[in-house]
This record gives sequence, C-alpha cells and structure tokens, in this order.
Amino acid sequence: MTVSSLDPAIAARLKRGPDGLVPAVAQQYDTGEVLMLAWMDDEALHRTLTTGRATYWSRSRGEYWVKGDTSGHVQHVRSVALDCDGDTLLVRVDQVGAACHTGTRTCFDGRDLPLTADAVPSDVVASESASPAEAGTQTDPAEGSIR
Amino acid sequence: MTVSSLDPAIAARLKRGPDGLVPAVAQQYDTGEVLMLAWMDDEALHRTLTTGRATYWSRSRGEYWVKGDTSGHVQHVRSVALDCDGDTLLVRVDQVGAACHTGTRTCFDGRDLPLTADAVPSDVVASESASPAEAGTQTDPAEGSIR
Repeated sequence: MTVSSLDPAIAARLKRGPDGLVPAVAQQYDTGEVLMLAWMDDEALHRTLTTGRATYWSRSRGEYWVKGDTSGHVQHVRSVALDCDGDTLLVRVDQVGAACHTGTRTCFDGRDLPLTADAVPSDVVASESASPAEAGTQTDPAEGSIR
Repeated sequence: MTVSSLDPAIAARLKRGPDGLVPAVAQQYDTGEVLMLAWMDDEALHRTLTTGRATYWSRSRGEYWVKGDTSGHVQHVRSVALDCDGDTLLVRVDQVGAACHTGTRTCFDGRDLPLTADAVPSDVVASESASPAEAGTQTDPAEGSIR
C-alpha cells in the first residue's frame, strides 16, 4: 500500500481492521440496490473521494483496483458516508453495467440462502409488535438442517 | 464462539476472515436503505436463517447479539443472500425503529464525507460513456486536502 493523501481529519476517524482496511458497501444511488462489498485503505478512500471513480484495495491481487478499468463496469461516485463507528463506508454510485464479475447486476442476485420458513411465518413477522423479544437469547429451537 | 449448527453445505461456501467472521450488510427490504454493517460467524448465520431475527457476533462484546434485544429495534429477516465469492452476506430485514445506536434510522445518515466536486462535475458523470477510463490508474491529480 501507499502513503496516503487522505485528509488527516478523515483518517483520524477511520477504524481499520488489522489489515488496515475498511469494508465499503457499494450501493446504486437511485434504486438502492446493494451492488457489492469491497475494501478500502486510506489511499483508496482518498482516490474515491477525489477522482469520482470508486477505487478499492484488492485483497486478492494486492493492488489498487479502479472498478471498471478492465471490465468497463465503472462506478461513478455520487456520495460516500462513514458510519457512526468509523469502521464501514457506504459508497453510493452510478454503476455501469454489471457490478459482479459473474455478469449479474449485483453480487447477491439469485444467491439467496434458504430460510426456515416455519420458524417465523411471514404473517407473524408482519404483525409482530416492536417489543424486545427474549427468545433470541435462548437455545435455538431449530437444530436440524435448514435445507 | 459456539459449535455451529449451520447447514454444512452453506458452511462450505463461506469464506471467513482470519477472525472467523463474515461481514453482513443489513438492508431495509422495501426501501433499499443500507441500515448498518455487522459481522456473523457460522452460528450467527444459522440463528439468523432459522429464527427470523438478525443475529450478529459482536466483536466489541465478544458475544452473540440479537439485534433489538436490548433496544427493541428488532430486525425481522426477510431474506439472506451470500455473494458470488462467499465472503459477504446481504440480510434484508424489516427494521423496527432506528438501526443505529445513536438514534438515526441508519448508521450512515448525515455522515457523508466531502467529495472533491470539481474533480468530476456531476454533468460530466451523467453523460460519460461506459468505456473504461485509464485516468484512474495514473497519479491522482488532486493531492491537496479534500475539505
């Protein structure tokens, strides 16, 4: 990684993991789709804030990754927010084409895991009150396979 | 952490960090708001899939955290997706009240970082073609403070 030009006032607020990285959630600015999650160090954040192009640190390649430079699937940055704890970034972008390297629009499309439907019927969820439930701290009643 | 009851077929697809955790993005299922990011181990994912309540591993407290158990700000799970790489979860929920411990609806509300607006005027962004740009791999032209 590189010596960063990130504004020191922002750098002071960042809480990085042991690898110096912060997770960055990329969201399509108008539809709200969560496109992907990637990682930024200080310099990647600096470049994202100042170039208008979402730029990540590729953990697999060990280099900066300007999203779309090889695929054409650019992310034009609309806004960047740092969360309450300073340990997560939300990058709102205008995504050109597919965000996912597999060709799907987002990295989550068609990749739902099975829920155990009978544990919480949807009509119960919809009408449930907002009071704190205690059940979650007890032993999970569904011990078998969830498929 | 606990011996997990997570379906072995799902566990085999999870790519965990060195701490055994996977980032989980919580999104309001209908509005698309990104509410927060938290972390799950296998057992937290199992509980989330089988109880209908979003359950995380709290890194700060070192224990399972059923969102809303103390605050009342419950997350009712609508779907859970595992991304293309198996290293990120997207949990679509119906969030009761504020997701953030500070009282804001999401952990990102009102927490935008300043963009260097003159680097990429919005009208250029809006009309820019989808062809891969090379500028992102060059030295960043904006070296000064971004505030």
